Amino acid sequence: MSDAPDGPEDQPSLDGRDITEEEVFAAHEGGKLSISPTVGLTGRRDLAIAYTPGVAKVCRAIADDKALTARYTWTHRLVAVVSDGTAVLGLGDIGPRASLPVMEGKSALFKAFADLDSIPLVLETTDVDEIVDTLVHLRPSFGAVNLEDIAAPRCFEIERRLIEALDCPVMHDDQHGTAIVVLAALRGAATALGRELAPLRVVVSGAGASGIACANILMSAGVQDVTVVDSRGVIHTGRDHLTLIKTELAERTNPRGLTGGLPEAVRDADVFLGLSGSTVPESVIETMADGAIVFALSNPDPEIDPAVARKHAAVVATGRSDYPNQINNVLAFPGVFAGALDAAARRITESMKLAAADAIAGIAAGDDAFGVDHIVPSALDDRVAPAVAAAVARAAADEGVVRRHVAEVAVDHH
Amino acid sequence: MSDAPDGPEDQPSLDGRDITEEEVFAAHEGGKLSISPTVGLTGRRDLAIAYTPGVAKVCRAIADDKALTARYTWTHRLVAVVSDGTAVLGLGDIGPRASLPVMEGKSALFKAFADLDSIPLVLETTDVDEIVDTLVHLRPSFGAVNLEDIAAPRCFEIERRLIEALDCPVMHDDQHGTAIVVLAALRGAATALGRELAPLRVVVSGAGASGIACANILMSAGVQDVTVVDSRGVIHTGRDHLTLIKTELAERTNPRGLTGGLPEAVRDADVFLGLSGSTVPESVIETMADGAIVFALSNPDPEIDPAVARKHAAVVATGRSDYPNQINNVLAFPGVFAGALDAAARRITESMKLAAADAIAGIAAGDDAFGVDHIVPSALDDRVAPAVAAAVARAAADEGVVRRHVAEVAVDHH
Repeated sequence: MSDAPDGPEDQPSLDGRDITEEEVFAAHEGGKLSISPTVGLTGRRDLAIAYTPGVAKVCRAIADDKALTARYTWTHRLVAVVSDGTAVLGLGDIGPRASLPVMEGKSALFKAFADLDSIPLVLETTDVDEIVDTLVHLRPSFGAVNLEDIAAPRCFEIERRLIEALDCPVMHDDQHGTAIVVLAALRGAATALGRELAPLRVVVSGAGASGIACANILMSAGVQDVTVVDSRGVIHTGRDHLTLIKTELAERTNPRGLTGGLPEAVRDADVFLGLSGSTVPESVIETMADGAIVFALSNPDPEIDPAVARKHAAVVATGRSDYPNQINNVLAFPGVFAGALDAAARRITESMKLAAADAIAGIAAGDDAFGVDHIVPSALDDRVAPAVAAAVARAAADEGVVRRHVAEVAVDHH
Repeated sequence: MSDAPDGPEDQPSLDGRDITEEEVFAAHEGGKLSISPTVGLTGRRDLAIAYTPGVAKVCRAIADDKALTARYTWTHRLVAVVSDGTAVLGLGDIGPRASLPVMEGKSALFKAFADLDSIPLVLETTDVDEIVDTLVHLRPSFGAVNLEDIAAPRCFEIERRLIEALDCPVMHDDQHGTAIVVLAALRGAATALGRELAPLRVVVSGAGASGIACANILMSAGVQDVTVVDSRGVIHTGRDHLTLIKTELAERTNPRGLTGGLPEAVRDADVFLGLSGSTVPESVIETMADGAIVFALSNPDPEIDPAVARKHAAVVATGRSDYPNQINNVLAFPGVFAGALDAAARRITESMKLAAADAIAGIAAGDDAFGVDHIVPSALDDRVAPAVAAAVARAAADEGVVRRHVAEVAVDHH
């Protein structure tokens, strides 16, 4: 299974010439997160307001009306970043403790990009029931769950069951964060090339968490011809020994009934979407249709050298910041969760994800630099998260998945 | 069951003349905690250090040597403040959501007094197995567990099982935080009166979480004559229908085999320790021995008016900041957890608790104002937590309950 690109990178850092190991370890000394009280705690008066006896009034108000929890605790804008450490970056199953620096980094990004508080919760179990039960028991402690770096196929069941069990936004970022940004980028590429999205022939290389989520969102967005290829070749209904997930995928994809391997699938395709962690030879890419679009998203080594791909493709994107068109989850997840929490949404729906992708694509399309080498905004573009949040909140409201809005909860609570 | 005093208070706040409801609710708007990244996240270089690709080096180092988790994540100084909301302040079983403002306040106090990070984890279950399992699964996410506001008798089993299951400091503050400060105050009172601790006759009114913990720590500290009284009277081995906890208590306390009610127990006693939430009449207090010590710790209303008690007692203490001798848990818990975490202790032992009490008593005894009306330091005294932490860490090291010390973990990890 491939991991989606998941962080800004640039050449100097990738080859280690600029950033030293010493610098990296020094920055991680003591961890990367800190708690701060938002109230004064220096005098007796402060303590009487923030703690006893004052706090009892707030406790009583929430006991009388649970909706006030959203107003008087930090949980309504708190994202739990949850992992069991089984599929961490390109490192694989390194366990919960070793995954912590990634989860702390993710929490830090939530704060930096969307001003959301976030706590890493890493689990010393890979049992689906135990993971689900743990989060169900902790439900009142947070406002949303960002699942992270959990291996397929367990990630699918864990996400599905948590969405059912928890009345709050739950999203496995490796699936849907990636899918949202890929859709945004593909919209950008199509626009830059003056083409429509729906008729594009898309080949997804990789049937892990991100590959399947990308295939799904592209079909939701109207793309009619999506074919998924895994390490054993094209996924089609005639193939033996398919997992349940892939059987289901075979029924909804590959409308022309392709068989064979990656070369057969890619021939005459309009879009190659690499999420496989493997490589694709130039000889395969050069068989694509004219005006091809290549997203080679494996990190740190794209499936094909972007410069080589560009010889045969009209648009090339990677997960790296040292090439044009960096496809990075940070464009999506901060705004998606901020929008869902702002709207007090009970879940993150397909239309909210599509709205997020549209918002990202819209920002890119509005830039003067928009074109085949600028199909998505920069990962550091601070206009993105607020635009995504607004679009996601609107979509949630339109779809009616919102609770009584936070602004509407009783103000006269005494 | 009584709740121990648990926060600084003063007259203006207690009667509401000074602090308004509006002020209290305004201070709680949005909650009282915030996450801050401790690393820069504004440019590509920052992100490459704190997130991908740099973070992978740190993940790999921890995967190779789990002891490095303590060094490169925030967990080694992170306290989970855990509650099911069943015994919150004087409010009782108000549930996990309504308990959150207290837990956020507790986390804020950990930061303010001991510079420890802390996250509230509130549980939507009161099932002992589920609570224990939840924390066992989350074990890699934190460095210590402060149990808070969990009703007796479940609090005893939950604490016992978590201490067994988790290789980290676990303490139910309502029990042991209170007990530590009570012992410190009783040492102070004895010193101020020129008396020894061991021969004092002590009556504990209240056999809830804090009453039992206080009886236990006083006996650990050498007090030989401790009698516990609950709502049905003196706990003695001849009483019917005792719970398991009280049966066990009856065997270790009440050496003179007292029977009857509170008046029988208090007659000629040296120390009255009120943790009952009920009242005690002046006519009972006046039967105590000469030079009596009265700790009337129910909050916000002490078991007896301190001014009335003072007519018959040489030392009077309460949980309130508007009378002399405020007995407040904040004198203990920040330093206890800081010391245990500094020492990388696997648990909080009886000797660590005794050391904490000695440290608190030592600070009071060193003050010029030391005497019958200054037997403990002020709850806001910023010398206390560091002194407690140092004493607790030393006790942990002496007792050999420490892991390989954080400072000793391999520095040459590349």
